[in-house]
Order: sequence, then structure tokens, then C-alpha cells
Amino acid sequence: MQFETKIGKSTKETLSVYGYDLAEDLIGNITLADMLFLGVKHRKPTENESKMLNATLIAICEHGFTPSSLSSRLTYLGAPEAIQAAVAAGLLGAGTVYFGAMEYVAEMLQKAVQKQNQHQSIEELAAIVIQERKEQGLQLPGFGHHIHKPVDPRTPKLFAIAEELGFLDKHSQLLLEMHNQFCQQKGKQITLNVTGAIGAILSDMDIDYRLVKSFAVAARAVGLVGHIAEEIENGRDESVAQQLFEYVENHTDYKA
Amino acid sequence: MQFETKIGKSTKETLSVYGYDLAEDLIGNITLADMLFLGVKHRKPTENESKMLNATLIAICEHGFTPSSLSSRLTYLGAPEAIQAAVAAGLLGAGTVYFGAMEYVAEMLQKAVQKQNQHQSIEELAAIVIQERKEQGLQLPGFGHHIHKPVDPRTPKLFAIAEELGFLDKHSQLLLEMHNQFCQQKGKQITLNVTGAIGAILSDMDIDYRLVKSFAVAARAVGLVGHIAEEIENGRDESVAQQLFEYVENHTDYKA
Amino acid sequence: MQFETKIGKSTKETLSVYGYDLAEDLIGNITLADMLFLGVKHRKPTENESKMLNATLIAICEHGFTPSSLSSRLTYLGAPEAIQAAVAAGLLGAGTVYFGAMEYVAEMLQKAVQKQNQHQSIEELAAIVIQERKEQGLQLPGFGHHIHKPVDPRTPKLFAIAEELGFLDKHSQLLLEMHNQFCQQKGKQITLNVTGAIGAILSDMDIDYRLVKSFAVAARAVGLVGHIAEEIENGRDESVAQQLFEYVENHTDYKA
Amino acid sequence: MQFETKIGKSTKETLSVYGYDLAEDLIGNITLADMLFLGVKHRKPTENESKMLNATLIAICEHGFTPSSLSSRLTYLGAPEAIQAAVAAGLLGAGTVYFGAMEYVAEMLQKAVQKQNQHQSIEELAAIVIQERKEQGLQLPGFGHHIHKPVDPRTPKLFAIAEELGFLDKHSQLLLEMHNQFCQQKGKQITLNVTGAIGAILSDMDIDYRLVKSFAVAARAVGLVGHIAEEIENGRDESVAQQLFEYVENHTDYKA
Repeated sequence: MQFETKIGKSTKETLSVYGYDLAEDLIGNITLADMLFLGVKHRKPTENESKMLNATLIAICEHGFTPSSLSSRLTYLGAPEAIQAAVAAGLLGAGTVYFGAMEYVAEMLQKAVQKQNQHQSIEELAAIVIQERKEQGLQLPGFGHHIHKPVDPRTPKLFAIAEELGFLDKHSQLLLEMHNQFCQQKGKQITLNVTGAIGAILSDMDIDYRLVKSFAVAARAVGLVGHIAEEIENGRDESVAQQLFEYVENHTDYKA
Repeated sequence: MQFETKIGKSTKETLSVYGYDLAEDLIGNITLADMLFLGVKHRKPTENESKMLNATLIAICEHGFTPSSLSSRLTYLGAPEAIQAAVAAGLLGAGTVYFGAMEYVAEMLQKAVQKQNQHQSIEELAAIVIQERKEQGLQLPGFGHHIHKPVDPRTPKLFAIAEELGFLDKHSQLLLEMHNQFCQQKGKQITLNVTGAIGAILSDMDIDYRLVKSFAVAARAVGLVGHIAEEIENGRDESVAQQLFEYVENHTDYKA
Repeated sequence: MQFETKIGKSTKETLSVYGYDLAEDLIGNITLADMLFLGVKHRKPTENESKMLNATLIAICEHGFTPSSLSSRLTYLGAPEAIQAAVAAGLLGAGTVYFGAMEYVAEMLQKAVQKQNQHQSIEELAAIVIQERKEQGLQLPGFGHHIHKPVDPRTPKLFAIAEELGFLDKHSQLLLEMHNQFCQQKGKQITLNVTGAIGAILSDMDIDYRLVKSFAVAARAVGLVGHIAEEIENGRDESVAQQLFEYVENHTDYKA
Repeated sequence: MQFETKIGKSTKETLSVYGYDLAEDLIGNITLADMLFLGVKHRKPTENESKMLNATLIAICEHGFTPSSLSSRLTYLGAPEAIQAAVAAGLLGAGTVYFGAMEYVAEMLQKAVQKQNQHQSIEELAAIVIQERKEQGLQLPGFGHHIHKPVDPRTPKLFAIAEELGFLDKHSQLLLEMHNQFCQQKGKQITLNVTGAIGAILSDMDIDYRLVKSFAVAARAVGLVGHIAEEIENGRDESVAQQLFEYVENHTDYKA
């Protein structure tokens, strides 16, 4: 039995990763985010790809107190010796509700662009996608935000960078046009949120939609370290998780 | 009840992270790894700090098939719809045995440097640390490797970059001197492994030893994405996890 | 802000759980499995319910080496100090592929029984469900097994107990009839597997299908303890996880 | 390469678990908790062992809102499709702070009893253990509780059952005597908490202290199902996790 992989192997003298010599070619030459790219495209990103990727990951790795970061802190409270468990606990909620949207946007756009015929304008395609989802009773992922209305400040920033670096291509154009049409239909300005922007831009970077969410998960692992660091700094007496737990303990209404 | 944080908060129009405006100051301006730095130092790294940090993280994020990546792939096999769970499963083994060493090296070096008096040379300090650990029956973390003998190729590379960028300071010098003395005592060349190099260099970057392992955990999350990507590419028929499971199933010796 | 719950609350002198006094009413009076029942039905099970529930959980808590138990052991290898992480890692693969089937069976049966009209015989209903799933391109969950052919030994045992205890009701009858018809259509004996039996029996115990998988997850946590116990007994030298990792390390075919 | 195990193996017609035929010997004959016993002792428990074990597990599987159950609910909020992830997240905090005590009590008692010589009375042994821990600067695990003062209602209940069933043996007697002496020394009644009772009783059931915490982890998995069930019942609008998150969001004091 042999187990095949393109990822890597260690020998006595070298570590190979995706065809590169880890020590000679990668350490010191690429950024952490580029390893994600290498992992899914099996080549080093260009300088522009690296910049674009880092920008999108920065946009989603940290949001302050969220269910994810609170879960991490609560886990740290009970198991401070196992930081990996606290990080893992914070990742486990990256399911359909918050993180899924990125993937659904990418899937929607990638499938639409794939079956676009050469005579269809982006306007026509956008109209078709909106209409089809309506008929299927599906929501439009990437639109709306409970705080950032009518503009999610990350969205225009990411699209501006995408334009500058050459990644504002078919998928992003389609999403932007869908946004226009959707706002017109609704008669008001609806937020094009950061998950929409990321799903579109990663699609324009040719990342398979099935891997889009995993990028967010990795970025989030980075963000969670900051929360654990703050719990360490605060110490037990000023621990947010401890205060949160005590608050709940003192405000529980038990009705069997 | 108010929950205090330095990390961040969203308002309708802005997202603030560690005193920076996420959209204006961070997206497009820093790398993913820099968010780790921001999380523990609460300021953006300098260009050299960013380079050094990315180099150290690249050195540990991917090693091919390991207990961690196999665990991730086996988890993906059962729950392909929950990529976050597969990543989390791969992180959970980042405990004392493999990942702990980085932290123990950093702790050993930081505590030694802290209590160094001004008349002690680095040679004297190194001798004291080795002697003290011997007397306490403690191993020297950061030394030895089951494959890379007598040189872990990542170690000289990382120290070369550290020297170039100005991070080969007291902690690294102490570890390098300890390595010299230890090899002399043993009468043979013993590997100074990558966890040693990382523990020393992060210490020279002034990262608290209690946070060193969390950097490795975040880097590992990035690496694990590549393993899940390969499982997706392979499909169920060529899945490494599936083959591994079947191999074990067919080679189990059951003796109750 | 008050957080409402039916589950429980501690005061200085008592712990209340679902309306019961934990120390007086529950400890010593119910089995661990009954807490699952209490958790979803908010009352103690009858003696027969408790027996049936324990029987179904025993049927799924342990299968020897599986992707789940291997993942647990590999995690323990790196983090022996964090047994909770090893258990958690083994649970994380309880997704759609292996554990989902129980839930899908229960959902299929519960929805079918709910819309059954009073004139329909069980034979008619079974035929409709099979036909509908065929038309929708959906597989029939609960049928087939890669090892146990043509009989999964757990299935007849569970249904025999269900009959004895009075839980072989509409849902189980429907599944058994579907199995008959399906085998006739295929012209061969197809396994009615344990996930089918459990999905049907828990439905006849009136457990909402959305909670069926969580029972299996809890049972699996119990089973995983045995795997970690065996790793502890074996010690590092005879660790299955260590041997597995080394085997893979020595049988890796790297093609970048 | 053969992987050895005592746990189990499936063949076409049978499933063997620890030397028993799963379908014939175990399903319908033992309780879920007994599988824990089987996993660590490799034999079925006696009726009294089964009762005692179920009693101890009931005592720790559910406490209402805790950091663990809140973490589970917050995880469910983001990933309702992955219940296994929510359960796992709730287990991950079972580290040194809350769950460790059980293990530390068991370790303390098992080591003390092991080196007890035949001339030592239980009073002398208790005095020695207290004195030794004092000299080593170690706390006494199993004593104190932030809510249940001066009596944790689970403790007398568990010891009463242990006495009735024949498990109030050397380890429990030692802990009870230590409690007496400790209260006398302090001049006040200090709580002998449930983790103390469980650590002592499991020791008297001859469970290796290294496995004691894993029993609590498995029991907790059962308890967490109830929290997820309540979130499902409540629905998104009445979700405790959602309310908790919103409360924190609206009461965050951000000071960079």
C-alpha cells in the first residue's frame, strides 16, 4: 500500500512541499497566506495574487466579539493548557450560517459563468441568476448585513484592490451587476456584504468554490489567537469569558 | 455589565481592530500573518518583523502526512460538508508532544535571559541552563529529530534570515551556544530542530512564550487546508483517508 | 437580560435538572442514557423506554477501528494531556457520510407517517415513499452495508427488543415493509443496516429526527474512551496511532 | 503491518467487542455507561458496578449554563447542520480548571493508597497526604465550591450509594478523613465537592486515575445534547446563544 500525495514529504536532508524545497524556496520567500494558494493551486502565487489573497483574508479574520470568539474564550477558561482546543472550538461554528455565504456566493457565480453563452451580456446573466433563484425559493447570498447598512466598508475596499490588481473579472462583475438589479427591484440600497465580495474575488482568482470556506476558516484561526492572547493578558480576574459566564449564571431564569 | 476589549468593534460604518480602521488601514496593507502580530503586540509589525514572522510560520505550517493531517483527512471523510470540523480535528493534536517544544524552548530561553546578570557571558548562561535542566531531570527542548539528522534544513535557513533582518539576538544566541555545548558534551552532532529555532526567534521578536504555540496552531490551520483540498481533488475513490481506513480494516489483529 | 432554560440551575443547596432534584431524584435512579431522553423529552423515561434507548445506543457506540476512532488516537498521540481533545476529534467526523443516515431514515419515516392518510395501508405508504425518492433521485437511507451482507446482525436484534418492549410501531413497520419491497424490486437481499433500525426505533420512541444524530454522537463519545484507554495501556511503544503514522510515513509516494 | 486491538472487529456476520458478541451479548443487556467500564476494564461490570457507575456519571453530566454548554450553543448557532461540532466544542474546555480535579483527586488517592504501609491507619495516611501537599505548595483537589457551601448535595448522595453498593472503600475513606482533618485545620466547614466524591469512588471501583477525566467527558457529551435540543426547540428567535451574542455585542466597551 502506498499513499500518494502532491503535498510533501520529508527526507533526511530536505523537506519538499508541492514540488518546492521548503527551506530553500519557500521560507523567507512567501507569506503565510500564500501557503493556502499553494495548497489549492499547487504553485506559488504571483505578487498580485499574493496581495489580493492577503487582502481578502485580512477582511474576514477578525470581527471582535462573535459567537466564534466567545466560544474560543469560554473554552480557554476551562482548558488554558490546551490553546489548540480553544482555537478549534472557535472554528467549529464556521458552518452554513455565517461562513457558508462565501461559498454559496462563489458557487452561484462560478456555475453561472460556466454556463454563460457567448451572446449573453453580464446584465442578462445577472437577471437570469436572480430570476432562477427566486423561482427556486433560494435567497441571494452575499446581500444584507445586520450592522453595516447600506454599505459594508470592506466591500468597496476589496473591489478597489481587485480592480487595481487585475482581479475584478467576470465573477465580480456579475455580482456587482446582480447587486444593482437587486437594489432596483427592491427600491432601496441593500448591503453587498464582505462575504459576497470575497466569494466573487476568490472566484476571479480561480479558486474552486468548494474551497472558499476553508480559506475563511484558516483566516479565522489567526484571528482567534488574538482573543486568547487577550484572555491571557487579562488574567482570570478580568477574563471576558469568566465575566460572561458569571453574568449568565446570575441571570438565568429556570422554568422546568 | 460591559465587556471590555482592545480587539475590535463594528459600528454601522466602520470596523475597528486594535485601534486601526480595518478597511482603511489593514485590508491591502498587511499580510495575514501580521494579524497574529497585531493580536499579541497590538501594533502593526515593521516590515522586517512581518518578513521574519512569515518565514517562521512557513517553516511549520506543512509537513506532508502527519498525525495531524491524517486526523483532518479522516474527519473530512465522514463530514465533507463541515470543512471547519476537519480543520479543527487536525489542530486538536497540537499538544505537548509535537507542538509543545516550541513553547518550552521559548519559556526556557525567556526565563534564562530574564534572570541573566550583567556579568554573565552567553557561554556561562548556556552552561547554567543545561546544568539546571540536567539536575531537574528535564530534557532540553528543541534538540533532536527523528528524520532530519544531523541538520534540520529549516534551522540554518531561519537563523540566516533572522541575522539578516536583525532578529538574531540574545535568545537565539543563547540557544545556539547551548547547542554547541550540548553537542560537545554528547560528543556528536545533535540536530537543533525547527521548533528550537522558532522558539528562539519568536523570543527575539519579543513574543511571550505562552503565545508561541498558538502561532504554530494558526499556521497549521493554513497547512491543513491543502490536505482537505487534496482529498477533494482525489475524490472518494482516491481518498487517502479512505485507503488508510480500509488498510487498517484489512490489517486488524483482534485479540480480546 | 434574562436567559431562560428548562435544563437546570444550581442554587446553594440544590441542583435542579428538568424539574428534578439532581441529587434526590436522578443520581442513583436513572442511567446515563436516560439523561439523553430527559434532555429531549423533559421527563424521565419509563423502564421500557430506558431499556430500548440503552439498547440502541449500545448498538452504535463501538465498531473497532474506524475513521473516527483512528482520528481520536492520532490526536491523543500529540496531546495526551488533553483527553477531551482526542474525544472531540473522534466526534468531528460524525457528519453526513456515516452518521447522517440515522437522521435521514428518521426524517423520511417521520414525514411519511405524518402525512399518511387513514385509508392508506403500510404497504401503500412504503410504495409511495420508495417511488417518491426514486423520482427525486434520492437514495434510500438505511439500506446496504460494506461488510454486513445480507444481514447486519444488530438490526434483527434491535427490532426483536423493540417488539418485546412495545416500540415496534408505525415507523419501524414502514421501514421493514420498505425493505421488503426494495429487496423484491432489486431481486436480491439487501442489508437493512443498523442506522435504519435505529432511525426507525427512535422515531417510534417519538424522538424528533433532528435530534437522532446527536444520540449517536453521545454514544460515540463513550466508545472513544475505550480507544484512548487502549492507547494508554499500550504505551507509546505499542501505540496504534504511532504505528499507523510510521507506516504512512514509510509508504508515502510523493509526486508534486 | 498488523494493528492489534482488544476493542473489536467486524466480520461479515458478527461484530465483536472486547470478546463479546455485540448483538448477542451486549445489545439489550448492558447500559450505555457499562461500555465505558468495558472499555477500560475489558469485562462487563457487575450489577452493582453498573449502578455505581451510572450514578457517578449522572452526577456530572449536566449543570445548566456553564462555559461548556454556552460554547456548544454558540457553535450550534453558526453550524446547526453539524451537531457533532457543537457537542465537540462543548467538550473542548474539559481541561485542568473544571474537569481536571476529578483526575487529580483520583491520582492523589491512588498514589497514597499504593504506598500506604500496613501499619498506617487511615488517619495517619490522611495527615501525611495533607502535609505533603502543603509542603509541595499544592492545593487539595476536591475541596471547595463557588456555589454549594458548605455541602455539595451530590457528595453525600454518591457516598451513600457507594456505601450501599459496597464501593465505599479505602480511597473514599481516605478522602473523607482528609476532609475531616482539613476542616478542623481551617476551623470551618469546607465543601467536599462532587469531583472529590467521583475521584474517590471511581478509584474504589479500580479505575486508573488517568482515565477518570475521560468518563466525565463522555458524560458531558450526553448532557450537551440537551442544550442543543433546547436551542432547536427555541428556534432562532428564542435562541439563548443568539441572545447572548447580541447582549455582548451591545455591551462591548472597545478601548484600543
